[in-house]
Amino acid sequence: MRFVKAHGAGNDFVLLSDPDDTLTLTPALVRALCRPHLGLGADGVIRLAPGRNGAGADVFMDYRNADGSVAEMCGNGVRCVAKYVADRGLVGGDVVLVDTRGGVKAVELTRGDDGLVERVRVDMGAPVVGRVATPIDVDGVEHAVTTLSMGNPHAVLLVDDLDGAPVSTLGPRLAVHPDFFGGTNVEFVAILAADRVRGRIWERGVGETLASGTGAAAMAVAAHLAGGADRSLTVVLPGGELDVDWTDETLWVTGPAVEVAAGDLDEAWLTTVA
Amino acid sequence: MRFVKAHGAGNDFVLLSDPDDTLTLTPALVRALCRPHLGLGADGVIRLAPGRNGAGADVFMDYRNADGSVAEMCGNGVRCVAKYVADRGLVGGDVVLVDTRGGVKAVELTRGDDGLVERVRVDMGAPVVGRVATPIDVDGVEHAVTTLSMGNPHAVLLVDDLDGAPVSTLGPRLAVHPDFFGGTNVEFVAILAADRVRGRIWERGVGETLASGTGAAAMAVAAHLAGGADRSLTVVLPGGELDVDWTDETLWVTGPAVEVAAGDLDEAWLTTVA
Repeated sequence: MRFVKAHGAGNDFVLLSDPDDTLTLTPALVRALCRPHLGLGADGVIRLAPGRNGAGADVFMDYRNADGSVAEMCGNGVRCVAKYVADRGLVGGDVVLVDTRGGVKAVELTRGDDGLVERVRVDMGAPVVGRVATPIDVDGVEHAVTTLSMGNPHAVLLVDDLDGAPVSTLGPRLAVHPDFFGGTNVEFVAILAADRVRGRIWERGVGETLASGTGAAAMAVAAHLAGGADRSLTVVLPGGELDVDWTDETLWVTGPAVEVAAGDLDEAWLTTVA
Repeated sequence: MRFVKAHGAGNDFVLLSDPDDTLTLTPALVRALCRPHLGLGADGVIRLAPGRNGAGADVFMDYRNADGSVAEMCGNGVRCVAKYVADRGLVGGDVVLVDTRGGVKAVELTRGDDGLVERVRVDMGAPVVGRVATPIDVDGVEHAVTTLSMGNPHAVLLVDDLDGAPVSTLGPRLAVHPDFFGGTNVEFVAILAADRVRGRIWERGVGETLASGTGAAAMAVAAHLAGGADRSLTVVLPGGELDVDWTDETLWVTGPAVEVAAGDLDEAWLTTVA
């Protein structure tokens, strides 16, 4: 079984190409692949399958979290999928249509001198805003939370001290808070300037991660609505920087897509984890 | 650049074959390869080079810790190196001589039905024992520590409560204690029965790891000398089980060697980290 290891700003994935749509991604296989030390280690697994009927897309991104659960959408994952199909000539031109469980995403490519994709601009669709800086009770303490959907759910808290933010304690509590049926991703964001914020992410089903495309989008929206930041700004994450541009019609995220390695999973190892 | 990702009981490595002895392992490359999310992620990098002059060995294990530093020896690494050269037919028979900075190790292979190596018995050489259950002062508190060399240095503490052991706090303090010039690995071990102990490892230059071959050997020696356990016993580590047999002449460690994947590092990625 062939694989590619890729990341977008430090949010990393095992990509499995499945052009015949025949590969079954069991939760056990996903967990084994994503496990550090004993597997390859990653935030998630992405099966690249043919675009689904009627979607009109070039490729379907079948995304799984490291715990084996299905996810609707992953902004950094979409960038890695677009680089994969464009660098291998599976799709021509500078736009790729990626079908996801959160809808079809139009992806614009910027290539380097070698013709390979370096940066990718993703039309993430307009955010659907829920509450803005609304108090939510967690263990008797109220936290002002802005909620929105970017295809997947986000709960964002503005903080002054990002390094001291309770990411690993409040994050997992909010992620399963009864107000968020089905769970939510949680972001903590500090406003550095009108056009620059810095954030940390607690990803549902994963834990703290270095980056998230939809998380960066959610931070930008919350920083504007609850903190007065610009609608176009840079989000600094532990794994790199993403540019967010929230227009009247939609929201764009631009950032890097990097391939680290490609190869084959060991057959004997696969029999022990399947 | 070709690579293999392998592990022994959860102690994982990026193996780089270098039969012409031409590959320069810079600390920057080692750190980039071992970094989770942004690289491949591993406890260390092993360059497989020709046996050095006069050593009479089949292969030289050029081992680097995740922080880029050089290490003398790594018991789990030796097993993965032996599996690599035996499974590819580079060495025949059921014994491989692996040259390391800690001396030449004789390695005995056990093959599965498919002819591939499954378990490996390593002659680790006799331990050189230093102190036995000797008090060492750390921040004003005395800890009974047994020290020994298995080619690399170890400091072992016997504990009753392994889950509550101060691995991530006392471990790094002892690792750089002035009594251990050049640093030491630190192990915490609980005796479950005369022939069974359970341990955790703070590896110098790495942090807490799932397993260590020389660490398991050190635990067995300390459990016998300071705790009265047998000289032949099983060491249960977070990443798996290793069997240790300390004879009058030498010390054997037997355990698994597993390959997870093989492939090529991305050329564009390599240019960004070299």
